[in-house]
Amino acid sequence: MNIKINSNFKNIKETYLFSEISQRVKRYSEANPGKDIIRLGIGDVTLPLPSVVTSAMKIAAGEMGEQKTFRGYPPESGYPFLKSAVQSHYQRYGVSLDISEIFISDGAKSDLGNLVDILGSNKVIIPDPVYPVYVDSNLMNGNNISLISGSKENGFLPMPDQITGDAAEPAVIYICSPNNPTGAAYNSEQLAKWVEYALGTGSLIIYDSAYEAFITQDDLPHSIYEIKGAYECAVEVCSFSKFAGFTGVRCGWTIVPQKLTADDGTSLNKMWLRRQSTKFNGVSYPVQAAAEAALTPEGMKQCLSNIEYYRRNAALIGEVLDSKGIFYTGGRNSPYIWLECPDKMGSWEFFDMLLNKAQIVGTPGEGFGEAGEGYFRITSFGTYENTVRACDRLREIL
Amino acid sequence: MNIKINSNFKNIKETYLFSEISQRVKRYSEANPGKDIIRLGIGDVTLPLPSVVTSAMKIAAGEMGEQKTFRGYPPESGYPFLKSAVQSHYQRYGVSLDISEIFISDGAKSDLGNLVDILGSNKVIIPDPVYPVYVDSNLMNGNNISLISGSKENGFLPMPDQITGDAAEPAVIYICSPNNPTGAAYNSEQLAKWVEYALGTGSLIIYDSAYEAFITQDDLPHSIYEIKGAYECAVEVCSFSKFAGFTGVRCGWTIVPQKLTADDGTSLNKMWLRRQSTKFNGVSYPVQAAAEAALTPEGMKQCLSNIEYYRRNAALIGEVLDSKGIFYTGGRNSPYIWLECPDKMGSWEFFDMLLNKAQIVGTPGEGFGEAGEGYFRITSFGTYENTVRACDRLREIL
Repeated sequence: MNIKINSNFKNIKETYLFSEISQRVKRYSEANPGKDIIRLGIGDVTLPLPSVVTSAMKIAAGEMGEQKTFRGYPPESGYPFLKSAVQSHYQRYGVSLDISEIFISDGAKSDLGNLVDILGSNKVIIPDPVYPVYVDSNLMNGNNISLISGSKENGFLPMPDQITGDAAEPAVIYICSPNNPTGAAYNSEQLAKWVEYALGTGSLIIYDSAYEAFITQDDLPHSIYEIKGAYECAVEVCSFSKFAGFTGVRCGWTIVPQKLTADDGTSLNKMWLRRQSTKFNGVSYPVQAAAEAALTPEGMKQCLSNIEYYRRNAALIGEVLDSKGIFYTGGRNSPYIWLECPDKMGSWEFFDMLLNKAQIVGTPGEGFGEAGEGYFRITSFGTYENTVRACDRLREIL
Repeated sequence: MNIKINSNFKNIKETYLFSEISQRVKRYSEANPGKDIIRLGIGDVTLPLPSVVTSAMKIAAGEMGEQKTFRGYPPESGYPFLKSAVQSHYQRYGVSLDISEIFISDGAKSDLGNLVDILGSNKVIIPDPVYPVYVDSNLMNGNNISLISGSKENGFLPMPDQITGDAAEPAVIYICSPNNPTGAAYNSEQLAKWVEYALGTGSLIIYDSAYEAFITQDDLPHSIYEIKGAYECAVEVCSFSKFAGFTGVRCGWTIVPQKLTADDGTSLNKMWLRRQSTKFNGVSYPVQAAAEAALTPEGMKQCLSNIEYYRRNAALIGEVLDSKGIFYTGGRNSPYIWLECPDKMGSWEFFDMLLNKAQIVGTPGEGFGEAGEGYFRITSFGTYENTVRACDRLREIL
């Protein structure tokens, strides 16, 4: 063909992280048959859906089979019943939202990726290490990316004073808190500095709060809108994936406040509505019904019980690292534990050591960006029994 | 905020078509209380889902609630079980596809909108009248659009000889057959001319076959890949929405052949996989299970029985128009009937006449583009009883 293709795709790096991991594990298994390997590299939930969620989904599926209750095209931005439930969810955190500011989606990844559609060519600020979607979706649009590094010194919570170049230049800033992969979470004071920076420069914050349900500390905001001024500078993207175990069900939401306007007065809310109405046809009705059930009191109870299960795993891993004096972030407010590889080992070196000596599979930190070199991610999404056994092994070899 | 926004959004026209229709209907109802209005403007299915589909969805929802059968993140391009079912579906039409060429989506609209992500800035050829997504998603990307008009003369099936400008220039060409809104469908000979044009100019055809299940005539292809050479020049987007009544369930697919390469050898299949892996996290498992059920022999039987119901409605409307000598396209291979307004009436004039004299609501053709002026869309998605009554009224007033 002679048509022009999007040449920006050439700038996207292929990541071989997970295929490299599975190859190394495969080689080890073949050389050491019968060895019991414990996988703590997974970033996906493992507990089944709460029963209130599956019941709601079954009922909704049944409704779709009856003439009186059948539903065709859903509203592009979500059913009012689910938007109301999300609105109430935010009220628990003292955040008031108008229904028109809530957009139901098929998951955070879609919205995080598609938000670039409504933006022009801006300076883009992204923390490192990071969930690769922010970088890749901006590379696809040919945007100019500045990475700001997490480190032991800043507790993997980079701050505005690290921004290089013209400090007054408005930017699109990605923040994920609690962070994937580091598990580090900004407190109110730190987030307020980001909001202040954004308001001062006319920047936009894209705030990914997918892991907010894992927060246990009182001084950590669940939503950026708990910070004064955030309605004027931030979009928030959240998900049912980790909170309610919806990774296989696919539902999330995005908040685009009515107060978000470009300097010519254009409403970002209207632009996003237009984008979604044009390129998206809404979320499956049974999925939205299931999501609504997760936000009922009984649903919340069941979801939080699952989160508590993962938290207990994280605490066990944290105790081992504490006892060994190993630096780490995460665990307390996140399903992820991000640890400094001991003895200045490289990420892959530590990966091989853990696999060979303890038959534990984790994720090398450099897979999430250069600033992840020398670090390692372990998740709490394994079973309790496997996590206990993994901790015993870690205690022995570290 | 001072960040740059996507200024192309300013070029997208707001369409007030459906709000204008509902306002006119509201005014009429208020002025004429108690009048029995029959709505044949709807573009959405109305029959409930087949029982095999809802059963499969309920079972899958139940599986998600059990530890042994729970599923987390689905593959971004779809579960192999559903891709295999789509592959077999195409074999019925003599079309062979590799599994890697099939991408499961949450509906045709998403993929039709998102495909622009992998393309550069090309001449874009779009038929008029047309489903607005093609135009709007290209306007959002700042692409240069050439409309080619449907008319009574070409049976609302525009052909390559209508293309203006440099006839050798490679282009991205949108084809929807059977067409929304005109219901007109290309035969094999006509489609072969489009494929020949695309191959000769190095163009890409984006073929929307969402209504293929409504085809009854043997000489009309269900897939563009029934045409020789199409694997080298066409992407095909299809949907469970109309075939299986999935407008509220959300599932579709897109075929990107391995043979589609840019002139530098870049594989469009790889680009689309990369786009989807970055900005999409796959389709809900219970939705994919429901879609698989629709493609089983029993599912096909139940789905086709629903389509037969709509077809009978279309035939009734067609008979009235035939008896009055009114020109129309569609109906036979499509749920839509696209008629020439009698007595050279304008689209809105005819709308008002139908509403006032027969209490029937349809859709003015100009809502789908300039070439739709003087035409009118009636759908077969109403109930049989209402369609019969509407036909009686039409017979009287036309």
